[in-house]
Amino acid sequence: MDALAFPQDRGKGWYISLMAPNTKGPKFAWLDPSRLYCNSQALSDCVQDLLKPFQNESIDIVAGIDAMGFILGSAVATTLGKGFLAIRKAGHLCIDTQTQDYSDYSGREKLMEVRLDVLRPGLKVLIVDQWIETGGTMKAAIQLVEKQGATVVGVAAVAIENSEGGTWIKQNYKHSHCIPEELQSQIDSQYLESFALFGHKKQ
Amino acid sequence: MDALAFPQDRGKGWYISLMAPNTKGPKFAWLDPSRLYCNSQALSDCVQDLLKPFQNESIDIVAGIDAMGFILGSAVATTLGKGFLAIRKAGHLCIDTQTQDYSDYSGREKLMEVRLDVLRPGLKVLIVDQWIETGGTMKAAIQLVEKQGATVVGVAAVAIENSEGGTWIKQNYKHSHCIPEELQSQIDSQYLESFALFGHKKQ
Repeated sequence: MDALAFPQDRGKGWYISLMAPNTKGPKFAWLDPSRLYCNSQALSDCVQDLLKPFQNESIDIVAGIDAMGFILGSAVATTLGKGFLAIRKAGHLCIDTQTQDYSDYSGREKLMEVRLDVLRPGLKVLIVDQWIETGGTMKAAIQLVEKQGATVVGVAAVAIENSEGGTWIKQNYKHSHCIPEELQSQIDSQYLESFALFGHKKQ
Repeated sequence: MDALAFPQDRGKGWYISLMAPNTKGPKFAWLDPSRLYCNSQALSDCVQDLLKPFQNESIDIVAGIDAMGFILGSAVATTLGKGFLAIRKAGHLCIDTQTQDYSDYSGREKLMEVRLDVLRPGLKVLIVDQWIETGGTMKAAIQLVEKQGATVVGVAAVAIENSEGGTWIKQNYKHSHCIPEELQSQIDSQYLESFALFGHKKQ
């Protein structure tokens, strides 16, 4: 499907098929969700879908995770008319921060940081990332927000895999994602057969 | 100033003072613009200021530069109701890309990449980054967009320093930034005296 085109009749998650399949082999992610952001209607529909479960929630600020969570998080914040807090890979911010270690999707030990001058007890935070695979990155972001006494209203991502960490998030936090029920099994890491949605094998 | 508060009376660039000064020393940037994104009014006013010169321009898509340009770029795209194209540090995308080498603000040689399936001749692109210091990163992004035949409508950033590269951008592309005229000299790299705006020395 052309990256910038959209159908008149748009079913739930119509834009999922805009995501681009891997063409580079097993050292890379198995698909690239960022292609859907290029499509104005897809980006807008994706943000609306992510916000649906939070319509009756009070949200003070939207946090996004470095780097791809910045795109969707900022789109969500702007749509809500809220501010945006960057949760960053450690070592970049020139100001005092709190850090949290975590294992990312590849199993590497990493460090994440957040500024100290914004979060405070009672502040209601929606955390956004592009994709929740093992859940390690999102769990670290949740910990950083809660360590400063702020409240995690919920968690949003294009997809939340049914990994151990993804399931923990789903069980413990209000959450939203864009994957229609019937496609969830194709999204989950353990699904290693041919990937019908794109006609590709998941790497 | 409290990160989330805003004055009733907001002069041009009022939110510039929300940027946080360096507390970590010369190995880090001299200030952190991302604090202003946390403030909903500042983020909204900043985006509106960046869009002012482009009110009569036709823009098809907004491109943002990895990583901090994703935040402002996505906010601009969402405000315009346009899609968002990520211009990435090379090595992350699992799809075919075009690459461009460049020297970043620290003088290091780097590689940037953009997908091949979105840009096309005639597509009008606004490129957004957080800060233009040497201009090397933005110049590479411009080259990537133009190599695929798309048109750079303009360039937007919180600040564009009057460096050699920043001046080249200002002379060759329609551009916008948020720094009031009287503060520009404090923003420029060559300004090494005490930084009156924050009472800090620029590192």
